[in-house]
Amino acid sequence: MQCHSSEELEGLVEEARQLTVDGHVADYIPALAHANQDKLSVALYYPDGRCYSAGDTEENFTLQSISKVLTLALALMDRGEEYVFDHVGQEPTGDPFNSIAKLETNKPSKPLNPMINAGALAITHMIIGDTVEDRLERLLNFIRKLSGNPSINYNQIIAQSELKTGHLNRSLCYFMKQHGVIDEPVEDLMDLYTKQCAIEMNCLDLARIGCVLAMDGADPVSGEQIIPRDFARIAKTFMVTCGMYNASGEFAIKVGIPAKSGVAGGIMGSLPRTCGIGICGPSLDDKGNSIAGIRLLEMMSKKYSLSMF
Amino acid sequence: MQCHSSEELEGLVEEARQLTVDGHVADYIPALAHANQDKLSVALYYPDGRCYSAGDTEENFTLQSISKVLTLALALMDRGEEYVFDHVGQEPTGDPFNSIAKLETNKPSKPLNPMINAGALAITHMIIGDTVEDRLERLLNFIRKLSGNPSINYNQIIAQSELKTGHLNRSLCYFMKQHGVIDEPVEDLMDLYTKQCAIEMNCLDLARIGCVLAMDGADPVSGEQIIPRDFARIAKTFMVTCGMYNASGEFAIKVGIPAKSGVAGGIMGSLPRTCGIGICGPSLDDKGNSIAGIRLLEMMSKKYSLSMF
Amino acid sequence: MQCHSSEELEGLVEEARQLTVDGHVADYIPALAHANQDKLSVALYYPDGRCYSAGDTEENFTLQSISKVLTLALALMDRGEEYVFDHVGQEPTGDPFNSIAKLETNKPSKPLNPMINAGALAITHMIIGDTVEDRLERLLNFIRKLSGNPSINYNQIIAQSELKTGHLNRSLCYFMKQHGVIDEPVEDLMDLYTKQCAIEMNCLDLARIGCVLAMDGADPVSGEQIIPRDFARIAKTFMVTCGMYNASGEFAIKVGIPAKSGVAGGIMGSLPRTCGIGICGPSLDDKGNSIAGIRLLEMMSKKYSLSMF
Amino acid sequence: MQCHSSEELEGLVEEARQLTVDGHVADYIPALAHANQDKLSVALYYPDGRCYSAGDTEENFTLQSISKVLTLALALMDRGEEYVFDHVGQEPTGDPFNSIAKLETNKPSKPLNPMINAGALAITHMIIGDTVEDRLERLLNFIRKLSGNPSINYNQIIAQSELKTGHLNRSLCYFMKQHGVIDEPVEDLMDLYTKQCAIEMNCLDLARIGCVLAMDGADPVSGEQIIPRDFARIAKTFMVTCGMYNASGEFAIKVGIPAKSGVAGGIMGSLPRTCGIGICGPSLDDKGNSIAGIRLLEMMSKKYSLSMF
Repeated sequence: MQCHSSEELEGLVEEARQLTVDGHVADYIPALAHANQDKLSVALYYPDGRCYSAGDTEENFTLQSISKVLTLALALMDRGEEYVFDHVGQEPTGDPFNSIAKLETNKPSKPLNPMINAGALAITHMIIGDTVEDRLERLLNFIRKLSGNPSINYNQIIAQSELKTGHLNRSLCYFMKQHGVIDEPVEDLMDLYTKQCAIEMNCLDLARIGCVLAMDGADPVSGEQIIPRDFARIAKTFMVTCGMYNASGEFAIKVGIPAKSGVAGGIMGSLPRTCGIGICGPSLDDKGNSIAGIRLLEMMSKKYSLSMF
Repeated sequence: MQCHSSEELEGLVEEARQLTVDGHVADYIPALAHANQDKLSVALYYPDGRCYSAGDTEENFTLQSISKVLTLALALMDRGEEYVFDHVGQEPTGDPFNSIAKLETNKPSKPLNPMINAGALAITHMIIGDTVEDRLERLLNFIRKLSGNPSINYNQIIAQSELKTGHLNRSLCYFMKQHGVIDEPVEDLMDLYTKQCAIEMNCLDLARIGCVLAMDGADPVSGEQIIPRDFARIAKTFMVTCGMYNASGEFAIKVGIPAKSGVAGGIMGSLPRTCGIGICGPSLDDKGNSIAGIRLLEMMSKKYSLSMF
Repeated sequence: MQCHSSEELEGLVEEARQLTVDGHVADYIPALAHANQDKLSVALYYPDGRCYSAGDTEENFTLQSISKVLTLALALMDRGEEYVFDHVGQEPTGDPFNSIAKLETNKPSKPLNPMINAGALAITHMIIGDTVEDRLERLLNFIRKLSGNPSINYNQIIAQSELKTGHLNRSLCYFMKQHGVIDEPVEDLMDLYTKQCAIEMNCLDLARIGCVLAMDGADPVSGEQIIPRDFARIAKTFMVTCGMYNASGEFAIKVGIPAKSGVAGGIMGSLPRTCGIGICGPSLDDKGNSIAGIRLLEMMSKKYSLSMF
Repeated sequence: MQCHSSEELEGLVEEARQLTVDGHVADYIPALAHANQDKLSVALYYPDGRCYSAGDTEENFTLQSISKVLTLALALMDRGEEYVFDHVGQEPTGDPFNSIAKLETNKPSKPLNPMINAGALAITHMIIGDTVEDRLERLLNFIRKLSGNPSINYNQIIAQSELKTGHLNRSLCYFMKQHGVIDEPVEDLMDLYTKQCAIEMNCLDLARIGCVLAMDGADPVSGEQIIPRDFARIAKTFMVTCGMYNASGEFAIKVGIPAKSGVAGGIMGSLPRTCGIGICGPSLDDKGNSIAGIRLLEMMSKKYSLSMF
């Protein structure tokens, strides 16, 4: 079953929006604390080019952890599957996304998967380029291509805010540097990583990227294979097993759509061979996922029978 | 793409069988140590009733952890979704299947999911019935119905062997009893659990059960809704996020089929709306999964494009 | 400097008693929950036979964890130092006394020290005797000799209460049984252990036992070497490094006397070559130590310059 | 019983020296890997000024973790007991000295004690001074005074080597910075800490410092109270409960002398009201303690009955 109009979505958005009062905007990054808690937007992008949307669709938001899926795809293209998974594992973890404990207990030290911070930092470390600027430009161009929006850029204020306060990520970086998982200067990696997290777009851009992943890496308009089929599949698999922080298991059961969330409130969904979804609602639940966004996906999954399982 | 003959499968089985020398049969349960390491069998069950099979299909094996999926379905039918997930979590864990650590660190104490031993014991505790015998009979009848094989029973020697040596499971039970997760006598629960794990069948029976789950809980022959659709969906979701022990993430990437393994070498696959798969190969890899069975599924997934992602 | 009269102690007791309102009596063992929260007693036993005491000295209490020191001494005498420390470690731990996590993470599985529950159970397992009754009788006779009180026995109601509710200890036992640390029936060990913990005396008895340990294992009256010198030394060393649960480090700094506490409110002190101390105050702080007992020892340590350091 | 001649010590040194072949010099700091594995030296400093020594006493070595005891004393003098223990705990830990796990699991995040790296870094952070140079000079002057040797300085090559490779310590620092345990620039703290660890002396200097601590902080020659009595006591207490890494418990039992070791092979002993001991033997056991140094202390403890317990 498919959605056939933006009006249908509008009703769901308004119902889900009521939950925004029960959550909180992220405050651990000072620049994110200014987000408007009651915003909510959604876009649904079908491979035939149809796109329905509702809510505050004009709002821009930073990708934050959603960017982990896209750098993973680029790192796989830059380094190949074997290299990537020699350095970062593939297993979900019951620990919080920013946890360091498993880096210490696992021998040899290796981040459990590319969706937790440690793994994402190790993946960003793999992006090829001579300088931080080169690597960022390559990543930006990749994302511009995926979204079909050449004007996409990163938010400097948020990037700087994260760079200034991201001591836990620095702690993860130095721990991995000690164990040879990364070998570049930590401040370079932090610079690139915080800019990557601060890449900004709206829910329509995000839905289109989700659609490329859904279509096995092929651009829905031009048909160009932007991401090799196997890498698009890998990305979607991680979205199911560990895309929603410590709530990934519950989300897979309730919603059943490969999805990745970020602390700015974004969620990218990618339903294989079906559609891409972009959502933004900055009010977060206690796991760090958009509280209204999750409810919205739950309602959409039920209404349109979207669960893969 | 579909498999169209048992001959096709035969070729794949013989290729995968070569890996059996690299694994080991489970020896932590004495009665399992007698299994024949080089056996390998597979069956593929389509909803239209076609069934292809290859290898040592006449071999019986005990379900072991595969039974966790079926008791979960029955517990959901006995108690409802809310009750079940009030007592057992839904999140994958990076810890081994028999780990106790998270029971201690999580407050309040609650097993992370129904696929690790702690969670499976808590789920078996929920099966309704006046006595252990009643509860076992209810479970057996449920499984006989799913498999369409009224002669299915449990292996007494293996059940007794597990009952005698299962001190780690007793440790998990008493820990959960201390924290109120279970409240029946531990030896009763151990009795029921070890018999459940020792339920015996061949790969054709198992493939048919996988097919019922694949068809959203409906019997492929009679069309009877044996398991409510939502509970079949929940079962398949757990198979993806935590069905293959600590290799669930890697398996989802390499194979992409909801599957559950057991230490007797069985693997049940259940591809939504497509088919059920039953495999047995007692030679295990170091994660406790059938070494040749995993390879076989990998080859089948590639050849027939079975990955969901 | 030495205490020269019971009157001096009386003043300290009354001052320390004021803290009893800030603590709680142990309630995890139902039979202990009836203890009188505002009781406090102390006895000081010098090697020359002088004994000063104050407070509710007629009150009996069960040893609980204090018994761990005495079974350790007996196990060392029964099995020798090498055997004992092949099975139980010597290191303090930052984890709670009833924690199971380190049993799982340490390879091979071995309790960290004899003062945490896992280690104490493994030590009790070592007490020689044909039956639980024999072993208990040997332990009781040992303690009667140490205290010079032939009427000492265990409290049946408290022992039974602990036997009925001690599921966490059962969990530890089965975990250790799985790993070969113990090999007797768990219920036998639980029976012996709960009776050992329920051995009952008053603070004068306890102070005399502390004095024997202080005098390197020699009876202060008869001069008989009840415990070999090296084993008395080992017992006192563990009292310093891990005698006061997770507050052992802080206690060593504040008080500096080898001491062991129990959840019934007892504390046994043993100052090398100086004196034994027996205290009971059932109101516990959040670490499980007698709240007024600790304060009393702190005041005594300061007033009489008792710290070893 | 006391040692009465250097000849006695010489015999013990030669016997203990045989163990040096069974250990390894530290190699995680490149500049330490050049140490001569078969060196061994000892000095015994009595409060009356007598000093006996044996072995390679002319050899200089860096303090490494031994410096943690001395910065603790200075931080207590700079900030007071309450401030110090508000920020750093007092409990021993079963984890390795460089472990980060407990920083994550303890809420609020706080290093367990001043002898593990995390705690030592937090303590060094407390040393007062306007610049890193000022703070280092204050610490050096303090140590010059304790040792009675105005020429003591730090080894620049080793300090730089540690600064270049100490990523694990940086990881600990940033983790603590995130949680507000430290608030200065991490590279400043690392600069000071690595210089502190690289402070160099011989075993005679070290024995004299041990003697000051033994004499409750008073200079054995001038009688000047260099460290307040309570702080000297606190230092010695930590040396017992956590001075010898994960072997502190075993060492307390076997040797029974407050002691602190470092990975350059040094051990400082401080027997209350009795004597100070300085040892250096760069060949380490698998816990990171001087393998021959520990044996030597064990022999001395037995021969001269030095155990406190």
